[in-house]
Amino acid sequence: MATIKPFLLVLLFSIFSRISSSKTHHPLDPLTREELSLVQLIVKKSYPPRSSPVFHYVALDEPEKHDVLSWLAKPEPEPLPRRAQAILRVHKQTHELVVDLKARKVVSKHVHRGPGFPSLTLEEQTAANDLPLTYGPFLRSAAKRGIDVSQVVCSVFTVGWFAEEKQFIGKRVVKIQCFSKKDTVSVYLLPVEGLTIVVDLDEMRIVEYKDREVAPMPRAEGTEYRLSKLPLPHGPRINGARLVQENAPGFTIDGNVVRWMNWEFHVSFDARPGLVISMARIYDPDQKAFRSVMYRGHISELFVPYQDPTEDYYYKTFFDSGEFGFGVSAVSLVPNGDCPSHAVYMDAFYAGPDGTPVHVPNVFCIFERHAGEVMWRHTELAIPHVTVRPEVSLVVRMIVTVGNYDHVIDWEFKPSGSIKTQVGLTGILEVKAANYTHADQAAASEEAHGTYLAEHTIGLYHDHFLTYYLDIDVDGATNSFVKKNLVPRRNTNTGHHRTPRKSYWTVLGVGPTELVIENPNKKTKPGNPHGYRLIPGPVIHPLLAPDDGPQIRGSFTNYNIWVTPYNKTERYAGGKYVDQSQGEDGLAVWTRRNRKIENEDIVMWHVIGFHHVPCQEDFPMMPTLSGGFELRPTNFFERSAVLKAVPPPPMKADGCGVVEP
Amino acid sequence: MATIKPFLLVLLFSIFSRISSSKTHHPLDPLTREELSLVQLIVKKSYPPRSSPVFHYVALDEPEKHDVLSWLAKPEPEPLPRRAQAILRVHKQTHELVVDLKARKVVSKHVHRGPGFPSLTLEEQTAANDLPLTYGPFLRSAAKRGIDVSQVVCSVFTVGWFAEEKQFIGKRVVKIQCFSKKDTVSVYLLPVEGLTIVVDLDEMRIVEYKDREVAPMPRAEGTEYRLSKLPLPHGPRINGARLVQENAPGFTIDGNVVRWMNWEFHVSFDARPGLVISMARIYDPDQKAFRSVMYRGHISELFVPYQDPTEDYYYKTFFDSGEFGFGVSAVSLVPNGDCPSHAVYMDAFYAGPDGTPVHVPNVFCIFERHAGEVMWRHTELAIPHVTVRPEVSLVVRMIVTVGNYDHVIDWEFKPSGSIKTQVGLTGILEVKAANYTHADQAAASEEAHGTYLAEHTIGLYHDHFLTYYLDIDVDGATNSFVKKNLVPRRNTNTGHHRTPRKSYWTVLGVGPTELVIENPNKKTKPGNPHGYRLIPGPVIHPLLAPDDGPQIRGSFTNYNIWVTPYNKTERYAGGKYVDQSQGEDGLAVWTRRNRKIENEDIVMWHVIGFHHVPCQEDFPMMPTLSGGFELRPTNFFERSAVLKAVPPPPMKADGCGVVEP
Repeated sequence: MATIKPFLLVLLFSIFSRISSSKTHHPLDPLTREELSLVQLIVKKSYPPRSSPVFHYVALDEPEKHDVLSWLAKPEPEPLPRRAQAILRVHKQTHELVVDLKARKVVSKHVHRGPGFPSLTLEEQTAANDLPLTYGPFLRSAAKRGIDVSQVVCSVFTVGWFAEEKQFIGKRVVKIQCFSKKDTVSVYLLPVEGLTIVVDLDEMRIVEYKDREVAPMPRAEGTEYRLSKLPLPHGPRINGARLVQENAPGFTIDGNVVRWMNWEFHVSFDARPGLVISMARIYDPDQKAFRSVMYRGHISELFVPYQDPTEDYYYKTFFDSGEFGFGVSAVSLVPNGDCPSHAVYMDAFYAGPDGTPVHVPNVFCIFERHAGEVMWRHTELAIPHVTVRPEVSLVVRMIVTVGNYDHVIDWEFKPSGSIKTQVGLTGILEVKAANYTHADQAAASEEAHGTYLAEHTIGLYHDHFLTYYLDIDVDGATNSFVKKNLVPRRNTNTGHHRTPRKSYWTVLGVGPTELVIENPNKKTKPGNPHGYRLIPGPVIHPLLAPDDGPQIRGSFTNYNIWVTPYNKTERYAGGKYVDQSQGEDGLAVWTRRNRKIENEDIVMWHVIGFHHVPCQEDFPMMPTLSGGFELRPTNFFERSAVLKAVPPPPMKADGCGVVEP
Repeated sequence: MATIKPFLLVLLFSIFSRISSSKTHHPLDPLTREELSLVQLIVKKSYPPRSSPVFHYVALDEPEKHDVLSWLAKPEPEPLPRRAQAILRVHKQTHELVVDLKARKVVSKHVHRGPGFPSLTLEEQTAANDLPLTYGPFLRSAAKRGIDVSQVVCSVFTVGWFAEEKQFIGKRVVKIQCFSKKDTVSVYLLPVEGLTIVVDLDEMRIVEYKDREVAPMPRAEGTEYRLSKLPLPHGPRINGARLVQENAPGFTIDGNVVRWMNWEFHVSFDARPGLVISMARIYDPDQKAFRSVMYRGHISELFVPYQDPTEDYYYKTFFDSGEFGFGVSAVSLVPNGDCPSHAVYMDAFYAGPDGTPVHVPNVFCIFERHAGEVMWRHTELAIPHVTVRPEVSLVVRMIVTVGNYDHVIDWEFKPSGSIKTQVGLTGILEVKAANYTHADQAAASEEAHGTYLAEHTIGLYHDHFLTYYLDIDVDGATNSFVKKNLVPRRNTNTGHHRTPRKSYWTVLGVGPTELVIENPNKKTKPGNPHGYRLIPGPVIHPLLAPDDGPQIRGSFTNYNIWVTPYNKTERYAGGKYVDQSQGEDGLAVWTRRNRKIENEDIVMWHVIGFHHVPCQEDFPMMPTLSGGFELRPTNFFERSAVLKAVPPPPMKADGCGVVEP
């Protein structure tokens, strides 16, 4: 579209030298389609022919961090050995295997015996969903309610854990809730109430069925969201817009390594967390080198406890990542809708239940954001002149749909050195049917547990707790977490001159600010330790009782920030096996060991959250509600990393070229 | 660039009918250039020829709210009478005048006798800045320090208020600090320390001068930010990008009324707060009418206390809006830098010191933001399909530079009904010169009061407290502020069935969420009161002692949210006359009257803030740090306002037209 003038090129530093494209396999690359097929072959061969193992999770068994870093440091490194880890269900047992892909053999096999189970496969959910539709007692319940079974869809819900429910212990069970799809596509808004349906997934049959009571059905009217089905007039109309870039795209993707402006990072897919950012490094023109910022970042868990303790809803205390798999639940992104027209897409593969690779096209999108923000500016009156740099950032996006909720997960890189995250919550509310016909009735009741939104419809109160895994490595792995308080001080006038000022604040200790991961071994020229500080996201506190089953499992929400020593096996705040877990694994458990975290390879965990009191604007479709945090360099660079940012030349009015000087 | 197809037009509701363009003067339009000249003429005529009144502030004396609303309700209203208010300094007194523009006369004249003074004029600041440069004692001080006076610029700083400084009471004084401009344009980074220079502005002469001590000068090296003066290599390079829109711009400006998608609001300029948003209303297709959301919104005050109690800096406790005028300090926006290439600009006029209108071109910009966000979406697995709407918003921006700091002030309107604000802080740090040569020395000292950033340079600790005036009128003026807590509850199993769930949270009372302005007299069909809720911005708490002069003046920062009954005269949280005020006026004082705020015309005030611990990345130019809040409809609409949003047709690859079906 346009040409960069040669004289400009010589001004720009060359940042694309560290990882040559000859390295075919980055050691953190996700398993390819071929590798997944090979794992399938090797694993199946390791079992007797008729044992039919079900693949719940297959992913790269990543090399040790020091091996990855050594690999990176070599100019022409050998590829590191490729291993896979696989989690299977075989004869009602959970098997954990490690497979050596070069040796083509299973190198370790372990049976997991704790209470927690692996995440559900999509296929077993589908099979369980279909069970009620041919189950005699359910057909009678439907008839009693006047519901046409051909207009019913059902959905699996994990049961959580309550110590009193001893009948579930050791059994991989789920509950099924059914919905009407008559005259609407918003099935979650039309629940069939009063039924208890428990399915044993390993036996794939209904093991408990109760028809407790008949509740009124909410009305389908007003629940539609497809434009073609909505009554006129439509509007408002969204203006068409397209970002035209001088050099499009403004980044390169070399395998899974993305390079853009002063950033370089690795993007990979994992069936459990989905989008994983690794080895984010930023070029420092002073040091003439890339410097490490984050070894690994991803969403570790999403805990969504609903706040209705009654029979139909008390168990709805979901761990969306651990129970359903964020990666498996990631959707194919819609061009021009989920991502802007100038976005570039990446695909992914994961293992289906028999181990066959499943292809997810467009699972991530990457795009430059030119949102009209200001990178930095100043108008100087004393020596009149104005300097401005427009802001630009690079966004990597995944969208995860777990049932009714859609989560827009962004990682945003800024040339200033900041990494920002954002999660946008949209999709459809979880509602219950109730006998109310006016908000005042619901407000007067102790049993509404939500907002009265439409006839017979209560939007249930709930929370979202998102926990991020952030293995920050500021200039290498050995870091400290520094929490320094700003403290008020009385002016004691100890200086040479007395002043009438009575008070001020100062920072206690040597650290420069509140929440910093710093490298105590690396300092700027003036002597400040290199650091990245956390500007926290929206912080909420759990309101469940500490002795309630869901909160025992979700105890990683008791604090908003945790710091642990790096341990390759500690990735998931709610534990590795989350479905029906009893809080026996996870962040709160690991932390009790009280390990050393000062001047060590440490990991920070940040929990952000939203208490969600539904309102009518969330019905029938929730406008996106967003929040996130920022990791911002603090004394990491000697000076602003964007000081010498070169502004773009003016473009022609049609956006299709550069104005000639 | 493109055509809207006729069949689409009929689907779109017509929203541009309420305010016809025949109404030449909206009653809230700012004073025109001609009206300012008329005020100048009328005011000058009201004084004896040689009394030389100095104009510190001239603005529309806005009509009463009920008159404005009556005017709006009429199909063909007569223009409302135009009045101006003027604040002058005459013979060392502050005069407040009201001028009737039609009758061409002063209708009221009042002498303000409280301790506070009006905001400074730019011209008297310039005159005061020049005083030291020809002042014998200063020339000797400069010589003693080896500084060439031709390389010195000085800057005015307001003195705040300290009860002990009785010598300043009743005198309009400022302090002057001087800086070296040798080899740099970042003058704020090269302060000349150890001098006390006090200027009486009404007498325009130095009334106190002390040369207390000689401190080392920071070095100019490393303080430059002009790209042409920075050493090679430059970079990273910002990719050129241009938003090409199908219908550009996607909004109309009719006088000062902006209409876009479902929004309509009035944008005006006031020399004190600068950007003022008035009468923001949103079209409701269910009610087939525009509905009021916000009668008035603007930044009310910005309090910036520095945290160094020593002689050179203790008094630096600025009220940037009240002391310097946000409107007067608003800069002309730089196209393609301060605002994207597709932005549209508005101009402003204010009264100079002799009353002559001053023209500020490009003082506001307005643009559609297409940042690649998602308005709403859902992937439905049960009935497979995907629906997505891309997000779009409209941004109104002003940038205010008060000395070293640049503030990017945004108001953003979303079709969902949300109004978001954002303030971005950039520009140059305030630093002091100090004898340190390493960060460890500064950290060991009780007198550093900042971060050691470069040789002899301390970036001073400080706060930013931004107070927003938000006259929310949810469906009319009569509203209530509802603060409902989410409270944890023990499950008492009072329902028909016992469940093992131990706890949940609920919302106490009828209100749906935490911080809501609601109209108790207007309800949705299901019966929920119409409301807008506040999603707060970054909240900090003041750390100054309550008995310290600056905090007495800044007592409006003691709470993050205040609610007062509407009163036309109560607009500025720190009081009307802020310079050298003693806390005798403002939000904290008005609130003591404990007036009724339930089911009344109320105003919400929201204080957001940043504790700023400088870091090296802030040197020599601060990458923008942003924060803001959201006003989000909650049971204001019967359903999502963006449910029927019409997605744009796909555009051609060059962005210059629509793809034909």
